[in-house]
Amino acid sequence: MKITAVIMAGGRGERFWPQSRVNRPKQFLSLTADGETMIQKTVTRLSSLVDIEDVFIVTNKSYLDLVKEQLPSLPEENIIAEPAARNTAPCIGLAAGIIRKKYDDDAIMLVLPSDHLIKFNAMFVDILKQAIKVAEDNKNLVTIGITPTYPETGYGYINFSSSDTEYQGAYEVVRFVEKPDIDRAKQYVSSGEYLWNSGMFVWKASSILANIEKYLPDMYKGLAKISETYGTETFEETLCNIFPQLKSESIDFGVMERADDIYTIPGNFGWDDVGSWLALERINPTNEYGNMVKGDVISINTKNSTIIGGKKLIATIGLDDLIVVDTDDAILICSKDSSQDVKKVIENLKICNRNELV
Amino acid sequence: MKITAVIMAGGRGERFWPQSRVNRPKQFLSLTADGETMIQKTVTRLSSLVDIEDVFIVTNKSYLDLVKEQLPSLPEENIIAEPAARNTAPCIGLAAGIIRKKYDDDAIMLVLPSDHLIKFNAMFVDILKQAIKVAEDNKNLVTIGITPTYPETGYGYINFSSSDTEYQGAYEVVRFVEKPDIDRAKQYVSSGEYLWNSGMFVWKASSILANIEKYLPDMYKGLAKISETYGTETFEETLCNIFPQLKSESIDFGVMERADDIYTIPGNFGWDDVGSWLALERINPTNEYGNMVKGDVISINTKNSTIIGGKKLIATIGLDDLIVVDTDDAILICSKDSSQDVKKVIENLKICNRNELV
Repeated sequence: MKITAVIMAGGRGERFWPQSRVNRPKQFLSLTADGETMIQKTVTRLSSLVDIEDVFIVTNKSYLDLVKEQLPSLPEENIIAEPAARNTAPCIGLAAGIIRKKYDDDAIMLVLPSDHLIKFNAMFVDILKQAIKVAEDNKNLVTIGITPTYPETGYGYINFSSSDTEYQGAYEVVRFVEKPDIDRAKQYVSSGEYLWNSGMFVWKASSILANIEKYLPDMYKGLAKISETYGTETFEETLCNIFPQLKSESIDFGVMERADDIYTIPGNFGWDDVGSWLALERINPTNEYGNMVKGDVISINTKNSTIIGGKKLIATIGLDDLIVVDTDDAILICSKDSSQDVKKVIENLKICNRNELV
Repeated sequence: MKITAVIMAGGRGERFWPQSRVNRPKQFLSLTADGETMIQKTVTRLSSLVDIEDVFIVTNKSYLDLVKEQLPSLPEENIIAEPAARNTAPCIGLAAGIIRKKYDDDAIMLVLPSDHLIKFNAMFVDILKQAIKVAEDNKNLVTIGITPTYPETGYGYINFSSSDTEYQGAYEVVRFVEKPDIDRAKQYVSSGEYLWNSGMFVWKASSILANIEKYLPDMYKGLAKISETYGTETFEETLCNIFPQLKSESIDFGVMERADDIYTIPGNFGWDDVGSWLALERINPTNEYGNMVKGDVISINTKNSTIIGGKKLIATIGLDDLIVVDTDDAILICSKDSSQDVKKVIENLKICNRNELV
């Protein structure tokens, strides 16, 4: 049975401004000391499980060159360039249609974000193998859940049933829930019946397409028209004509919250969604003062801060809990409490028509 | 009677790093919105009282070009270039010798730092006029004191006698005291008998030279040899040979703390010694959030901060009481509490032999 990977790399993640820009979002950045970008790490991580010929990158048309540049060993025809951003349901459906056409109904898809980090790769691969076993059987949809360690309000949760299933280590999903408030998040974490929704899925191409056909029939029809032409001269044109007309919909809301036969496998492999600059001190070594420092930095009485230099010296004195990021055309200085407000800077830049900085 | 000004511009003030550098210290920076540098302001401030031909700048040899560039209307021969830094006593003595030679014994010298700010120029000029009257008489030395507004521990103090003198508004100096600790500073301020020592003096060339001869006889001999040659071909050579051999001594310690016939005139003309980055918010307008902002800055939830941009955008989020200064090759980010520690950065740079940044 063919195992493929579908890596979703169309996101425009703004939370790493000023390093991330519309024309170089987070998945194309290197945020760790090893210099590999997030998408490169995502592909490398799968190398023992999936041949590079069977890895598909679904991305926005505008990132085509970045993908080619960062993944030179990937066959060019495996880059699926969306002519418009339509959220995850059309993205995954398009990849599923192409994979079913290229291989067969039973081809397994590992659907993965391109901008998360995983610390324990071997454990991650083991979980994927387990998920593949469940997904091979019948019409099952499998989602990788993350054992929650604290009541995060920024993630969706998966409510699972702890009753035994026919698949060891896999649990039936009761329901998907959107980002909760803090009280609910606390309840979820203490109940032992909820996992974080990591946005990683494993299924047969035919299984997810059957569900899209059932719950999103219009989208299915559009996707079918596109994938019919895959491998022919008219593919590009059909994609450009039809894809932008598809409804923008997430796979969670469009399919997972409605479908049956969903299993979750709890993973505990050091997952990090690298959701903001705060992540940098989690995913990189910090020094004895709790600082995560990169570049030419002189720190005096500075602690618990993340300081990322550019081409010039940064001197910090008497700082605590601060994020400093220098780039060629912009400097961010942000208290850790405010890391989510980076998007306000981008809003401001857009309003002022300063698109060269967005 | 000839009135001259001697502006001391040899300081290497490090507290405005990264804008100030060894090769461009504070007096040559513009720290106010009007774009004038500190030394330009100092000269402009005197224009109603002293002809530009009678203004002398004593500076370090290495700042000769900066002085010429910033004060193009100043006669070049009025720039006295010290071949070595020897503190204020030799600096003032050298200028006094030259002025006595060029004019006469009775020529008045207004001795002024080049890197202080004064808000109320007219009041300042009135105080100088009053001081000139006292200095014309006899062998008096006059120092301008500043009415203290809080117990500053960073300044020296002048203890004065509130008994009437023969000069209205001028008081006899009891003693000069060095920078006090906080308890003493409080005592001084509450006593009503102490003024801040601003380092501004008014006297005849002959008066200060007589005192130097009395209290610093070796220095006097050296200075006499130099000023003898003023206006001749050998001046430059004599200056370079003798000046570096003079003892490094402040005029306060060397003369003022020992001399008689010292009067002080209290001034209240909005004096600011601009001693650190903290001064910027005092000497410049702040916005409704208490921020002093210059350059291309987007501030979100930022208050009571001083942000000085360079060539790129600075975005600040959730900051309070911070100083941010961007220059072409270095960025400073410093809590207001730590503004005095800027010198530690410079020490660090020196130790690491990174002199291009000092």
